[in-house]
Amino acid sequence: MNSLGKILRMSIYGESHGIGIGVILDGVPQGLEVSVEDFKKDIARRKPEKLGTTKRIEEDIPELLSGIYEGKTTGAPINIFFKNKNKQSEDYLDFKNHPRPGHADFTSTFKYKSYNDIRGSGHFSGRMTLGLVAGGVIAKKILENLFGNIIYNTEIKKIGKLMYKDNNKEIEKEIEKIKQLGDSLGGVVQCEISNIPIGLGEPFFDSVESLISHGIFSIPGIKGIEFGSGFLGCENLGSEFNDCFINKDGKTLTNNNGGINGGISNGNKLIFSVGVKPTSSIIKKQETYNFKNDKIETLKIQGRHDVAFILRVPIVIEAITSMVLADLSLRMIK
Amino acid sequence: MNSLGKILRMSIYGESHGIGIGVILDGVPQGLEVSVEDFKKDIARRKPEKLGTTKRIEEDIPELLSGIYEGKTTGAPINIFFKNKNKQSEDYLDFKNHPRPGHADFTSTFKYKSYNDIRGSGHFSGRMTLGLVAGGVIAKKILENLFGNIIYNTEIKKIGKLMYKDNNKEIEKEIEKIKQLGDSLGGVVQCEISNIPIGLGEPFFDSVESLISHGIFSIPGIKGIEFGSGFLGCENLGSEFNDCFINKDGKTLTNNNGGINGGISNGNKLIFSVGVKPTSSIIKKQETYNFKNDKIETLKIQGRHDVAFILRVPIVIEAITSMVLADLSLRMIK
Amino acid sequence: MNSLGKILRMSIYGESHGIGIGVILDGVPQGLEVSVEDFKKDIARRKPEKLGTTKRIEEDIPELLSGIYEGKTTGAPINIFFKNKNKQSEDYLDFKNHPRPGHADFTSTFKYKSYNDIRGSGHFSGRMTLGLVAGGVIAKKILENLFGNIIYNTEIKKIGKLMYKDNNKEIEKEIEKIKQLGDSLGGVVQCEISNIPIGLGEPFFDSVESLISHGIFSIPGIKGIEFGSGFLGCENLGSEFNDCFINKDGKTLTNNNGGINGGISNGNKLIFSVGVKPTSSIIKKQETYNFKNDKIETLKIQGRHDVAFILRVPIVIEAITSMVLADLSLRMIK
Amino acid sequence: MNSLGKILRMSIYGESHGIGIGVILDGVPQGLEVSVEDFKKDIARRKPEKLGTTKRIEEDIPELLSGIYEGKTTGAPINIFFKNKNKQSEDYLDFKNHPRPGHADFTSTFKYKSYNDIRGSGHFSGRMTLGLVAGGVIAKKILENLFGNIIYNTEIKKIGKLMYKDNNKEIEKEIEKIKQLGDSLGGVVQCEISNIPIGLGEPFFDSVESLISHGIFSIPGIKGIEFGSGFLGCENLGSEFNDCFINKDGKTLTNNNGGINGGISNGNKLIFSVGVKPTSSIIKKQETYNFKNDKIETLKIQGRHDVAFILRVPIVIEAITSMVLADLSLRMIK
Repeated sequence: MNSLGKILRMSIYGESHGIGIGVILDGVPQGLEVSVEDFKKDIARRKPEKLGTTKRIEEDIPELLSGIYEGKTTGAPINIFFKNKNKQSEDYLDFKNHPRPGHADFTSTFKYKSYNDIRGSGHFSGRMTLGLVAGGVIAKKILENLFGNIIYNTEIKKIGKLMYKDNNKEIEKEIEKIKQLGDSLGGVVQCEISNIPIGLGEPFFDSVESLISHGIFSIPGIKGIEFGSGFLGCENLGSEFNDCFINKDGKTLTNNNGGINGGISNGNKLIFSVGVKPTSSIIKKQETYNFKNDKIETLKIQGRHDVAFILRVPIVIEAITSMVLADLSLRMIK
Repeated sequence: MNSLGKILRMSIYGESHGIGIGVILDGVPQGLEVSVEDFKKDIARRKPEKLGTTKRIEEDIPELLSGIYEGKTTGAPINIFFKNKNKQSEDYLDFKNHPRPGHADFTSTFKYKSYNDIRGSGHFSGRMTLGLVAGGVIAKKILENLFGNIIYNTEIKKIGKLMYKDNNKEIEKEIEKIKQLGDSLGGVVQCEISNIPIGLGEPFFDSVESLISHGIFSIPGIKGIEFGSGFLGCENLGSEFNDCFINKDGKTLTNNNGGINGGISNGNKLIFSVGVKPTSSIIKKQETYNFKNDKIETLKIQGRHDVAFILRVPIVIEAITSMVLADLSLRMIK
Repeated sequence: MNSLGKILRMSIYGESHGIGIGVILDGVPQGLEVSVEDFKKDIARRKPEKLGTTKRIEEDIPELLSGIYEGKTTGAPINIFFKNKNKQSEDYLDFKNHPRPGHADFTSTFKYKSYNDIRGSGHFSGRMTLGLVAGGVIAKKILENLFGNIIYNTEIKKIGKLMYKDNNKEIEKEIEKIKQLGDSLGGVVQCEISNIPIGLGEPFFDSVESLISHGIFSIPGIKGIEFGSGFLGCENLGSEFNDCFINKDGKTLTNNNGGINGGISNGNKLIFSVGVKPTSSIIKKQETYNFKNDKIETLKIQGRHDVAFILRVPIVIEAITSMVLADLSLRMIK
Repeated sequence: MNSLGKILRMSIYGESHGIGIGVILDGVPQGLEVSVEDFKKDIARRKPEKLGTTKRIEEDIPELLSGIYEGKTTGAPINIFFKNKNKQSEDYLDFKNHPRPGHADFTSTFKYKSYNDIRGSGHFSGRMTLGLVAGGVIAKKILENLFGNIIYNTEIKKIGKLMYKDNNKEIEKEIEKIKQLGDSLGGVVQCEISNIPIGLGEPFFDSVESLISHGIFSIPGIKGIEFGSGFLGCENLGSEFNDCFINKDGKTLTNNNGGINGGISNGNKLIFSVGVKPTSSIIKKQETYNFKNDKIETLKIQGRHDVAFILRVPIVIEAITSMVLADLSLRMIK
């Protein structure tokens, strides 16, 4: 259950406030160059130095425990480990009794009969996505090696009700305002990937949409995904929605299908959007049930929390999508 | 790739215009009563006697080829087969060269090097969903046997830009109008399921949302899925979005998370919405590439086609969701 | 659980005395020629017209229900079905209470809480191997298409305590003698396969030996497997056992390892032997527990039973081994 | 490919002369007590202080990187890591050109295009079995928690041609003699497990024999496995071989089937024997092909090597069998 993929498999392990977190990739082709340096850029994108994210300072330097020899992949499993250095867990302990709304506290305590490590949300923590990002770095190398230059463009489209652009003063003001209120924001992320080949995706159950959505919804806090023109496109007539082919490479005039026909990539740009909910942990008081005291009580969450964890999400989406595409590519190349 | 599920596995086979289509369910617990009669209601829901769907008259009576003995499941694989009786395939043959926009003609011909059976879209056909519906009937029995009375409510919310209600004159007029234009409609389906237990779903990658979306996107023509208050909910503040617990059963005041926290069911109503694209096959002429003639040419699709295949989709969504929930339930019950 | 393989997957279904039995192959490459005729030879090998096997006359003509179009595989799942025609099941019904020694009657009734179809051993029947043989025919086509001329040589080495040769008078006399006694015989089958490529097999858990033995032990009645010089070879010194390389193709002077080093094929002949137990159903009276009457009682099994079902086993071993090799080959070819 | 199991999954990673080796267990039930202390006994059994094994002194203390909280399993993946401390790898480097007979040098270099880490056999090393032993410790806890007192008895039966008994002077002399010759020994290990429940094993392909043999053959150097009375038993008549039931618990008079009927455990003692080949690395000179020089040359292997690595194998067999039984148990308990 902690694994994704069929030929290329990503397994994650660890807890937010345990010894560390990590990822194992099995099925990586041999001979790819991998160094600690390669991870820096994507890991940095997960910790934007921006308004709206917490100041937890982890160096987040990957330890490459296996599968790499003389700077190249060997074909054996690659274990990438991140030590936890900056732990501060005493705040979390009453959440088994007085679970935070929107969090896994209630469900995980029920499911694991209270043996779960709830500190920092434990294995359910957003910190687990660091492993996904590291896995994505390897997946991108696989794709590049197979198909050359794949272009990724994953960006926030909306924060709360506002359209998002980089270095947007209005957005910064909004985030600052919400922070002062002790509240939080969500939004929408859009992912576009160009230059992927025709033919990825497997009927019937392993369509490109099926596998990408499977991966995306494993990221904590995702509530929706739509491909191409999405829900809005579904309001159109067939004659408006259909993407007519215009050349021998299969290029289409429009791209309402988001680069996928019948679950298989058609060579046009892969496009999808993802709905990210507002951060569940808010400073603002909430009236919610205390299961120990058997009554509704006020919960005031302490500690460091992103006002808008969506700011960290684009690289995670890109990573997991790369993983899915690399797995599908390795299934196809025979 | 043609299988879904881990403990309860559904595999489908067949082609729209071949001998027949079917489904195999492996991992079904023994002792469940199953008869041909049990399938009638759900199969009928897939063929609404309504404006907007074609008149292909198939009796669609399931043949229970294995796994049932003296009217009860044995624990061995259940093979449910549906013969194709009403075939009419000569129209389809040029679609490998002049692929229909929105269809799998182009991608499947590329992927399978033109060996694919494109008649009626072959293995990519909407007719394959008949197998999913049959599988759903078994999955519902498993769930009922485990948890008693589960309540399913899966309905069309929108046809094109119009809100949908049963026996809605306005909708009927719209469908009739679009039909006369030789065009097609899509829309939105909402699925609500009540009385499912707390604790379904597996971290990290097999969250309830991950598995449901994986299944849903294998249905031909789906372009989006959102859980709870979905994309719109993501515009709210955390204090608005968070679902506070109000009693010892974990009931929440609101249900913006759609009955899922941290990827695990929280016992509240499971809610999600699905975007269904307009039928790709339209009578209206389309200008699209002919790969044999190497130029854009007019394509005029003949034959029977639903104006709005979304009318058939609710039971398919319900079936595949039941399958996912039954699989997760069998993983949990130990 | 009723499936084998990762890229090429074989799933079986059916019961000995139900409607029929069959196999689904998923992951078969497109474009392979397949006709009903292709199955005849291997199916005939499973029904030797010989002393020692029963006279159950089934025509055993495969129905190709899906995945084949215009005589070629399409890449979609291939469902091969065999109707049961010659059923005679009334004899089997008391075996739930008075289970046959050596059979699955006791364990399957316990496991499936008596809902299992015990007629002809149901889903546990040797008749299920007909599906494996059919699957093997497809697997051999895949291998031939990838690597050209693979040579299979699967033969009985021993019947009971006697060395076996085709048309051996001594063996025929022995079988006739044992038949008159109402008793049964087992033996040893050896499988040799030449011309398979170097490099099949995946560390750590999917070694060639692991996957072949996994498949072989799913055949009813198998009790042992040994590769190369096997148990006897393990008595030798390392200097005797080691297979030294003698040319640039990796040919070895000896072949004590049976063509496998480190779980990976080394290009030399694949060799292994399989121990097949004597037929469990014997006419001879047996004193065994009657669970209904709560005491040891005499059991006298009626009906048709092979004196030596090992006579049918070679083609089944060859089929399942081909399946495993084809799956490993499709994993490797990328 | 580096994973075993369905509900309980064991994945291994690492290289003999890299940073370390380890194992991840996913699907472990929550609430089991686990401490570093628990691993000592089984790890010690893998390093017998005996004639016949090398003196590589590794402390082999497991680091529990995840999945354990306050001394108990949480239900999240458990990562157990062993650092490599005593590395000495410069000797291994020419084995890509002049591969050791019996080793994976030739096949792994071919398969991984020489990117593999061949030092100490890398990912193919016997040191990987340390991870299996650690996984077995957790698997045994799962079994004990489910069924109480399971009794394991795994012992060497034969060294070379000699029957083995603990503290056997004759064996010690033989090992010493072979050591002086620069040669090596193999043998046979027998495993008996008592008190496992009736009903483990899944038809058709996941029989108890299939899964155990799959696991056992992933241990480096195994060449054969036989259940119950094995190959010798196959020479008997059915009336001699059949195990008649003698009481209402399903106890049988004999146990030629090794505790398994129809692939499912019948509650009697599980018994099987395993053939272990002589250590491939011998000091004695061998004439074998040098692929760089394109001719047969003398190979003289340096370094530390077990005269009889079979001495380490019993606990590995026990561990992987516990793993398989625990996985089957978790599949059954629903």
